[in-house]
Amino acid sequence: MANAVENTPVPLCVLISGRGSNLRAIGEAVAAGRLRAVIRLVVSNRADAAGLEWSRGQGIETLALPHQDYPSVEAYDEALVQALKARGVRLVCLAGFMRILGPVFCKAFPQAVLNVHPSLLPSFPGAAAQAEALAHGVKVSGVTVHFVTPELDAGPIIMQAAVPVRDDDTYETLSTRILVEEHRVYPEAIQRIIAGGWRVDGRRVVTNPVSET
Amino acid sequence: MANAVENTPVPLCVLISGRGSNLRAIGEAVAAGRLRAVIRLVVSNRADAAGLEWSRGQGIETLALPHQDYPSVEAYDEALVQALKARGVRLVCLAGFMRILGPVFCKAFPQAVLNVHPSLLPSFPGAAAQAEALAHGVKVSGVTVHFVTPELDAGPIIMQAAVPVRDDDTYETLSTRILVEEHRVYPEAIQRIIAGGWRVDGRRVVTNPVSET
Repeated sequence: MANAVENTPVPLCVLISGRGSNLRAIGEAVAAGRLRAVIRLVVSNRADAAGLEWSRGQGIETLALPHQDYPSVEAYDEALVQALKARGVRLVCLAGFMRILGPVFCKAFPQAVLNVHPSLLPSFPGAAAQAEALAHGVKVSGVTVHFVTPELDAGPIIMQAAVPVRDDDTYETLSTRILVEEHRVYPEAIQRIIAGGWRVDGRRVVTNPVSET
Repeated sequence: MANAVENTPVPLCVLISGRGSNLRAIGEAVAAGRLRAVIRLVVSNRADAAGLEWSRGQGIETLALPHQDYPSVEAYDEALVQALKARGVRLVCLAGFMRILGPVFCKAFPQAVLNVHPSLLPSFPGAAAQAEALAHGVKVSGVTVHFVTPELDAGPIIMQAAVPVRDDDTYETLSTRILVEEHRVYPEAIQRIIAGGWRVDGRRVVTNPVSET
């Protein structure tokens, strides 16, 4: 997205597949004024996602876009891009969206697609991050907010936060502790991107010194 | 090493290749009574390692064991095992030791060889951890104390601590911030192993519940 200070709330789309707990955290940050954005649209690839009902209750437009209705990732990407562009969406936030977005989608929203992942990437990419962290025996895991690129969980990192792993943790206790941090960190990272003043230098997302103009 | 409460200080060997700043941190923890151990021997694979001179100044026995004097990793391991066993060493702490220890050494000291690594493993194993963390653009790196196994930087993890990565970090500033944590965490992790009451469950190093006997 345009990397400059915004005076009007930035129109977001949030992509979900389930309950959308991070969608709710984003909605709360918007309501509290911590996030200068407006959720213009919530899209789910599953029509029965609980987060869609929550969104409608909030007066947010929703769209179910079942992936099985499309013959390819490219066709799905194109439909999604068209829906988002038609509504003036400028920033896309994945929140438990369990589908790969391909190059077609990523090119349509350069440096404007964000995801939150339940580990300190590059450790434990993929869909089983918490279980893999436990099995590996790490003592520190965490949360990563990153730009989405066609490579899974490998885009430039915007924010990370550490979460301790305890000896008596189960998948549930660790996942819950990480989720609390996701809800805290994700809206803050989105606001940093909206606020501007950053650049991507190689793989590093860095804030420009104040002295630069 | 024997996983039980120790009443006498545990004889350690510290392996170094250079200045041995973690060796000094271990020595300070011993002197302060935070680590119930005695440094019985310091070994370097380089005769000019500055840490050897420091050790002699502390009255600690030193041994230079140049790797180029040995035809193979196995021959080196055997000489090292012999030197350590002859002095009653029970726990081996790597502190910037830039040589691979092979299966011969690891089998001679089961669950009794420790290393400190300047990243949150499994991210960034190997000799360039800080530079790779910077290039990857992580916002959180850290320190890992782990058991040494013949696979490089892949043994069960004893302790980890997170260290923030800043936008203006260089290799030097990040390495320095991580080193401060190494000096804090490594003696504490060694003391946990000496104190006993832990077990290795799969890859996880976990403390036994107090109710277990």
